[in-house]
Amino acid sequence: MVSVGIVGGTGYTGVELLRLLAAHPEARVTVITSRAEAGRRVDDLYPNLRGHCELAFSDPASAELTACDIVFFATPHNVAMHSVPDLIAADTRVIDLSADYRIRDAQLWSQWYGEPHASPDLLSKAVYGLPELNRDAIAGAQLVACAGCYPTSIQLGFLPLLEAGVVDTVNLIASAASGVSGAGRQAKVDNLLSEVSDSFKAYGVSGHRHLPEIEQGLSAVAGESVSVTFVPHLLPMVRGIHATLYAQLTRTDVDLQGLFAERYADEPFVDVLETGTYPQTRTVRGTNRVQISVEQPQGRNTVVVMVTEDNLVKGASGQAIQAMNLMLGMPETLGLTQIGLLP
Amino acid sequence: MVSVGIVGGTGYTGVELLRLLAAHPEARVTVITSRAEAGRRVDDLYPNLRGHCELAFSDPASAELTACDIVFFATPHNVAMHSVPDLIAADTRVIDLSADYRIRDAQLWSQWYGEPHASPDLLSKAVYGLPELNRDAIAGAQLVACAGCYPTSIQLGFLPLLEAGVVDTVNLIASAASGVSGAGRQAKVDNLLSEVSDSFKAYGVSGHRHLPEIEQGLSAVAGESVSVTFVPHLLPMVRGIHATLYAQLTRTDVDLQGLFAERYADEPFVDVLETGTYPQTRTVRGTNRVQISVEQPQGRNTVVVMVTEDNLVKGASGQAIQAMNLMLGMPETLGLTQIGLLP
Amino acid sequence: MVSVGIVGGTGYTGVELLRLLAAHPEARVTVITSRAEAGRRVDDLYPNLRGHCELAFSDPASAELTACDIVFFATPHNVAMHSVPDLIAADTRVIDLSADYRIRDAQLWSQWYGEPHASPDLLSKAVYGLPELNRDAIAGAQLVACAGCYPTSIQLGFLPLLEAGVVDTVNLIASAASGVSGAGRQAKVDNLLSEVSDSFKAYGVSGHRHLPEIEQGLSAVAGESVSVTFVPHLLPMVRGIHATLYAQLTRTDVDLQGLFAERYADEPFVDVLETGTYPQTRTVRGTNRVQISVEQPQGRNTVVVMVTEDNLVKGASGQAIQAMNLMLGMPETLGLTQIGLLP
Amino acid sequence: MVSVGIVGGTGYTGVELLRLLAAHPEARVTVITSRAEAGRRVDDLYPNLRGHCELAFSDPASAELTACDIVFFATPHNVAMHSVPDLIAADTRVIDLSADYRIRDAQLWSQWYGEPHASPDLLSKAVYGLPELNRDAIAGAQLVACAGCYPTSIQLGFLPLLEAGVVDTVNLIASAASGVSGAGRQAKVDNLLSEVSDSFKAYGVSGHRHLPEIEQGLSAVAGESVSVTFVPHLLPMVRGIHATLYAQLTRTDVDLQGLFAERYADEPFVDVLETGTYPQTRTVRGTNRVQISVEQPQGRNTVVVMVTEDNLVKGASGQAIQAMNLMLGMPETLGLTQIGLLP
Repeated sequence: MVSVGIVGGTGYTGVELLRLLAAHPEARVTVITSRAEAGRRVDDLYPNLRGHCELAFSDPASAELTACDIVFFATPHNVAMHSVPDLIAADTRVIDLSADYRIRDAQLWSQWYGEPHASPDLLSKAVYGLPELNRDAIAGAQLVACAGCYPTSIQLGFLPLLEAGVVDTVNLIASAASGVSGAGRQAKVDNLLSEVSDSFKAYGVSGHRHLPEIEQGLSAVAGESVSVTFVPHLLPMVRGIHATLYAQLTRTDVDLQGLFAERYADEPFVDVLETGTYPQTRTVRGTNRVQISVEQPQGRNTVVVMVTEDNLVKGASGQAIQAMNLMLGMPETLGLTQIGLLP
Repeated sequence: MVSVGIVGGTGYTGVELLRLLAAHPEARVTVITSRAEAGRRVDDLYPNLRGHCELAFSDPASAELTACDIVFFATPHNVAMHSVPDLIAADTRVIDLSADYRIRDAQLWSQWYGEPHASPDLLSKAVYGLPELNRDAIAGAQLVACAGCYPTSIQLGFLPLLEAGVVDTVNLIASAASGVSGAGRQAKVDNLLSEVSDSFKAYGVSGHRHLPEIEQGLSAVAGESVSVTFVPHLLPMVRGIHATLYAQLTRTDVDLQGLFAERYADEPFVDVLETGTYPQTRTVRGTNRVQISVEQPQGRNTVVVMVTEDNLVKGASGQAIQAMNLMLGMPETLGLTQIGLLP
Repeated sequence: MVSVGIVGGTGYTGVELLRLLAAHPEARVTVITSRAEAGRRVDDLYPNLRGHCELAFSDPASAELTACDIVFFATPHNVAMHSVPDLIAADTRVIDLSADYRIRDAQLWSQWYGEPHASPDLLSKAVYGLPELNRDAIAGAQLVACAGCYPTSIQLGFLPLLEAGVVDTVNLIASAASGVSGAGRQAKVDNLLSEVSDSFKAYGVSGHRHLPEIEQGLSAVAGESVSVTFVPHLLPMVRGIHATLYAQLTRTDVDLQGLFAERYADEPFVDVLETGTYPQTRTVRGTNRVQISVEQPQGRNTVVVMVTEDNLVKGASGQAIQAMNLMLGMPETLGLTQIGLLP
Repeated sequence: MVSVGIVGGTGYTGVELLRLLAAHPEARVTVITSRAEAGRRVDDLYPNLRGHCELAFSDPASAELTACDIVFFATPHNVAMHSVPDLIAADTRVIDLSADYRIRDAQLWSQWYGEPHASPDLLSKAVYGLPELNRDAIAGAQLVACAGCYPTSIQLGFLPLLEAGVVDTVNLIASAASGVSGAGRQAKVDNLLSEVSDSFKAYGVSGHRHLPEIEQGLSAVAGESVSVTFVPHLLPMVRGIHATLYAQLTRTDVDLQGLFAERYADEPFVDVLETGTYPQTRTVRGTNRVQISVEQPQGRNTVVVMVTEDNLVKGASGQAIQAMNLMLGMPETLGLTQIGLLP
């Protein structure tokens, strides 16, 4: 039985880790920290966990973390980078769900996240946590930087096209939409139900922090610098990301459906739908699954890829557990076979 | 391994049976029928089941049902009563999720459901499927009539008060609200998102079909005829029932919190919350759990009980599987320990 | 043309006053204050007002308010009571949308609102702003304390029954539900979309601040002390209140439909629906109208009254403008004849 | 006072016409038809209209329509084309909100709408009802074919770019999302709240009926054949369209903000937002207004235009009344100055 620590457990990715790990046969959460809620029982804050979790939040200063086999950081960005070095030094495995170790270039990171990186030497040690892209590296890693929610869906959608080299890399377009849970559990007027319910809008159009992460990943795949126009939108609902991707084909003889089906044939969490059927966010709700469709409207030159995921599962906590399974040599799907809650 | 048949599998209680039974270690669905969708793969209609269900819908006329160890009817009312007799005659166990066998008085049933009962002789054989009320009878039953969605929450809320005899039985009030999935998956203008989203209303105020079921159950508990004013409301959301119950105390020295805590101490699916905390529908979403709070506002004479459940799980498919577990001598909670999806 | 000032204009009742007054032919908002947003254009914060409002927020210290013909306070409770005395001394008319002057007993007010009242001598001067109850007093008032959102619907629903003396006054029950906009525009985790969307719960069950206001009003109507059990619930939507009221009839020969129809026959903003049809919150969305139905389920002893309103209009800003019209001798419905936005 | 007839008044564009025309000082609806609801009072079906509309639905066969000054068709497609010829012959002005007269090429129309056009000779007589594009032609028209909901937002968004000739016309991309009311008020499982609430998906990706309409309009503007990839999505809410448009700039020195601001400076219903602020569907809810932002992310070659509208107002009934005002020589904004309901 693996002992698990969670840093910053009061947010949505924290409670989701608890929900998923409670059903994991080989892992047990032994410590969960929160500065603000130290001493409070976890199931008092999250009554869905009553009967499934006897823990209370503890102070993050606690030394119990180094005793864990593996520690998840479910903190906002700019937090993990201060605490991870001590855990790495103590030979503890770390999975960071935040953005702190996703960008390999410390200066680029600093430009987008507003302050100097606190442990830049770890950036080269960190493995980017998108198993469909670099499964083996994750398996051997001590520090994994989980892929962001938007970047997971957008990279998985463009991957087959870029690997096959069949689209123009200078004008990729990612029009994506997320449920409000992606904004976390902070007290902000902008995310009140009265502000975002029953409405839809784009945001961060001039530049969103997930852009450099997406371009870094896709450039590596393409073997050349790619340019993505990324426009995120806010959906009037809790969970789910839908990415609609557009690219210009550079060849006319591509079997798009075959390309995607083949690329993901052996991937346990990527489900390529049949031609003419499109993914919905609800069918992957609560699951670690991505569903993908590809279409070539009117047989023209523009290819459209649609990708759905649950931003809190495959876009965060589920993907983190998938990485844990790989790092610890357990079956990759262990504890992650939930079925989407529909309707 | 138990072989399970499902009649009428295209509705929401049907897909929910499939989701829950896919995670049940001792049961396997071997046949699922639908007149309208015969021949179509189940996971084509419900893509959340892709990879978890290889079945196709078959014609309900099929004789495969009698080969099952147990058959669930997930049909609208007035359907099961025509087909159940043959299965009973063939010694197949039956769990009816519809209303056909809930009312013991055939004439009363007929008055509320609009036609004569087709198999009235089975009414006395049918056991009412509310395990917290009559667990032993269910364990020995061949035919179980699962409690309705509203009646489950309302009866569980009033139960401790009536068993203890501490409230007036002539003016019980049940003000309840349900998500739209309770209305099923029929094409009706009334249940379009454009009609019921972003709005709230009462319905069926002059008389709802669950009223006789509630009064039948509570009268048996109270040992006298009780009178309930039942007002259902429609919530602008998919899943969840919240019942707010009001009763007049006939004694002033009642430890209400203790009464409820004690009554449900050994119930695996009834969770009595601490004083001053109130249940939400979301914390039981996707689970077979009921959460209950009791309050005596301003220390006055009116007691308020709040109950939440997922209408498709504890109010339907989960409760049906709970009954199956009891009927087949399996642990009552087998396959039913999901954690609520929150947020 | 009447010049109007608004204190505390950044909240939802503030923007709603602006929306409604922009369509009022005889009133013009000349000053709107906000400490936090002073200097910012109103239509920058609320882009729905672009082209309809050229104002910027000003500092509340500004002396411009006394130059207004009438000043609305759209502030949280415990604010107006500090500023209103100066305006009253300057002979300015004041309409307070907050709770500061609703309770006539300063000690009772203090008990529910947590601090001593800052201007208790004005309590007897303030007129309670529910036109259907005391139209004439409002017309002659200098200070009107607008009825609260829940109290408006609950009092209008019980009014005909209590005036006619046909129900027991010791066990009135008000089971009500409100959209989240009733909680205002403060940054609170509790009101995030991710917390309250797709869910339903009761709150404030042990005692809500609107209880003493409701009981004060209904006791005056009944001519005796009435006791109300008031349970508010939170709806997963923005606007709308639905109150479901229960009372025990003390007479058996009451024409309930006639009673309500007659009581409200001349009321421009109270619409009594036909027998058997029930109100929805959406049909009064954006309007100053209340819709009411009365029902006697199964012909038994319990009468059920259903009332809907838009909590931001008839429950706040619309009712305030209705009071303004009365105070200034203008037609009561001026600027308030919007039609509900449906669907 | 203009007398107005409405054919097919039970749908959402029908009730929206009634809501808007009730506030129009120079128009009065004198007849409204519905085969299914003939004889029923309009305000019985739509209680938001109580007190504002005394009409009952009449049979569409009725000859009263020709007595109207102007007749709106709020019918599904493939209906108006059978009845309009008689009205045109009788010199009645007609505004068709459906798709029947939007496509000038009868064969192209037939290909997308599945049957031969019933009155192809009227196609050349019909004027396309997008006032910002051809105001003068509408003013002189006897038959106006109102622009579709998606086409209105998408054409208004691309218009300044194409008129200025600054983007590549071969790979325009329109990623748009609509509330469910766009699907009308038909009883379909696909549009049940339980099916589309709390979820998001693309649909009609291989080819949506609005595509030929969009390309016809934009090609005329560009003076050459343009190619649009149009992907519509379904939002879990009632009202609102948000179009996110992408185009490749062919010049590097374009003042995009100035281009849009200047193009729409005199348009009463097109509101170009300041740089860096983006439109939301809620700020135009219930109004005839379009809000537009333009952005050039990261200063790269792809221009992004965001457009919001209320699909039932500027996307349907409001635009139809705007056309009526023009056709009858009344001020264009008459009856159309509502302010968006926010929150």
